[in-house]
Amino acid sequence: MGLLDLSRQLIRRCDELGAISEEPGRLTRTFASPAMARANQLVGSWMRSAGLQVSEDAAFNLLGRWNSNQSGAKTFLLGSHLDTVRDAGKYDGPLGVLAAVAAVQLLRERKVALPFHLEIAGFSDEEGVRYQTAYLGSRALAGKLTAADLARVQEKQIVGARRRPGEFTGYAEVHIEQGPVLEKHGLPVGVVTAIAGQSRLAVEFHGVAGHAGTVPMKLRRDALAGAAELILAAEGCGVLATVGKVEVDPGASNVIPGKSSVTLDVRDQADSRRLAAVRSLKIKAQAIARRRGLKIVWRVVQQTTAVRCDHALMRIFSHCIAKRGLRVMRLPSGAGHDAAALSTICPVAMLFVRCKGGISHHPAEAVKTADAQTAIAVLADFIRTLGKAE
Amino acid sequence: MGLLDLSRQLIRRCDELGAISEEPGRLTRTFASPAMARANQLVGSWMRSAGLQVSEDAAFNLLGRWNSNQSGAKTFLLGSHLDTVRDAGKYDGPLGVLAAVAAVQLLRERKVALPFHLEIAGFSDEEGVRYQTAYLGSRALAGKLTAADLARVQEKQIVGARRRPGEFTGYAEVHIEQGPVLEKHGLPVGVVTAIAGQSRLAVEFHGVAGHAGTVPMKLRRDALAGAAELILAAEGCGVLATVGKVEVDPGASNVIPGKSSVTLDVRDQADSRRLAAVRSLKIKAQAIARRRGLKIVWRVVQQTTAVRCDHALMRIFSHCIAKRGLRVMRLPSGAGHDAAALSTICPVAMLFVRCKGGISHHPAEAVKTADAQTAIAVLADFIRTLGKAE
Repeated sequence: MGLLDLSRQLIRRCDELGAISEEPGRLTRTFASPAMARANQLVGSWMRSAGLQVSEDAAFNLLGRWNSNQSGAKTFLLGSHLDTVRDAGKYDGPLGVLAAVAAVQLLRERKVALPFHLEIAGFSDEEGVRYQTAYLGSRALAGKLTAADLARVQEKQIVGARRRPGEFTGYAEVHIEQGPVLEKHGLPVGVVTAIAGQSRLAVEFHGVAGHAGTVPMKLRRDALAGAAELILAAEGCGVLATVGKVEVDPGASNVIPGKSSVTLDVRDQADSRRLAAVRSLKIKAQAIARRRGLKIVWRVVQQTTAVRCDHALMRIFSHCIAKRGLRVMRLPSGAGHDAAALSTICPVAMLFVRCKGGISHHPAEAVKTADAQTAIAVLADFIRTLGKAE
Repeated sequence: MGLLDLSRQLIRRCDELGAISEEPGRLTRTFASPAMARANQLVGSWMRSAGLQVSEDAAFNLLGRWNSNQSGAKTFLLGSHLDTVRDAGKYDGPLGVLAAVAAVQLLRERKVALPFHLEIAGFSDEEGVRYQTAYLGSRALAGKLTAADLARVQEKQIVGARRRPGEFTGYAEVHIEQGPVLEKHGLPVGVVTAIAGQSRLAVEFHGVAGHAGTVPMKLRRDALAGAAELILAAEGCGVLATVGKVEVDPGASNVIPGKSSVTLDVRDQADSRRLAAVRSLKIKAQAIARRRGLKIVWRVVQQTTAVRCDHALMRIFSHCIAKRGLRVMRLPSGAGHDAAALSTICPVAMLFVRCKGGISHHPAEAVKTADAQTAIAVLADFIRTLGKAE
């Protein structure tokens, strides 16, 4: 099968996989669900057709293996995830798993022999919809589950998915960009430099509720007006910062808000810049509260540090892209990926694929066949180049 | 019964009435509910004890009448409402009805004869909880129901509550202030100058949703950041303005808001000032939307014009207050009242009573017995003075 046919097959397979859902009328496929079992079965059959040995580990990760004949060979891992958000698009996750399958198909058809074992993982939980704890699948494989994770999940056996330390020489993941940068620059693919670190905060302002018609403006302690100032401060804080959710209590049109709660999501590829921005926003929020006579509750919900991609692997991706006559764009990932979990046990790299309008986590997610073709070609070339480098 | 005993009886009666609810564990009494029927029965029995002739009109208003012996006498109306918001306090409404009953009790015990008929109304729907259309009871009595009202209610017979044009020479209402102004000035009662006009608006900003980690700040069209600017503009617009409710779509911590909806409540006793503030806020909101690349939807939900209280009636209230050695405070009402509906057919006046912390529409509503005593005394004196003036 030529590259063009492989890319058409890839888009078709994303469609087919996108029909496997646990909810009628929309795509939702969560960790350890019957829908995921059906998805693993289908992708497993495609892996088998590509000549891979297929298994499912204790954490519901689907694994397809191409063993090298070389004695003492180590293993290089490819992959992405097969779970989705609620009402998802068809490409976030599956594109990476199926691009890897297509790249293997291409290499095997061309009778390439690799000096390392190649394994493809379809991870079972990147989005964290089921237990609100992301990367369960890839962290189980990396042996990085925590006691808190295990307290949360029903499926205690997932610890058994842990692989031998040092087993993997590296990990590479193809994923849709989920942002508008490649599209804006007119490029089909880009090399990820780092996965941004993230601070998730929950901020509450407590004021005094009152009748909208009877409390003079200067006697008010309006909890929502305080939140409005913080929303604008976040927007101007110099790094990626988002208030995605606001709740007002009591939340009636004729009652002065007595309490407001906002979420604050702050990201940057440089941890120091992110942490400085969070510190500065906290000082501003405290000043807003003081000036307005509000009480503030500032809570850090989660902090993840940035993950740097491996320079050697990035160079190979860049080389393979340039060989195709394309400009090499390097860009950070603001979203988290399984590569972050794998980075705890081996060097990682990621290839981003342009997606329409930068839209993800939405049924409108779209990837062009031509871009899928570029991704397959670059990934296959990457694997072959890795083999030559050994 | 002396004044002190009447005021204690009034507070006790508010407690007793506050236990009549359609919801267990909290006070909710809405238009035409079984709870309202029970409340009317109880208040009716108190009216009868005070020597009033009791009836219920076609709009569930409870009426207690004290007929004058004078031939050709007209009728002066006292009253307030017996319905409540959900999870209400015990004084908003009932205090005014029961203070009128207590004032009648006092006047009859003192053998006062009036040159006019006196009627006390316990209106059935001031809060508008049942049909989201306020003043059903008092507007039915005033003959001001609209076709839209009747389309909305099941109880079409309420039009029958309409009274003869010119029947009432005036209306006076005692009500808790629902604001902190009297408390701040250390005064038990105050004379209302006007009921503020109100503009209720619903404003939507439509932007573009996106991933909080992947869309660069300068490519964003964040619908919530636009709303935050409007919230702060409203706060500084020079009249009473409140954003009490915000909704964000999709409303997830890691998604840039694609749509925001806010309510905007603008009030002032001068209609021209209120309308100028609304116009200026609309221009500001449009400028915010333009600058941010958002679409704006600006919808006027309801506008009510301000109602001026009658100068002659206000003077009598002021005189009766001053006679008790109290400073006369005149203040506007930011909240709506049945007096607004009655103002369409006769001169109106209102006496505000201090309430704890300015709190209303909440179980924590509280009125001091001493303040209730002042209210009863001032109202009784007001009625007697009206009689002398004729």
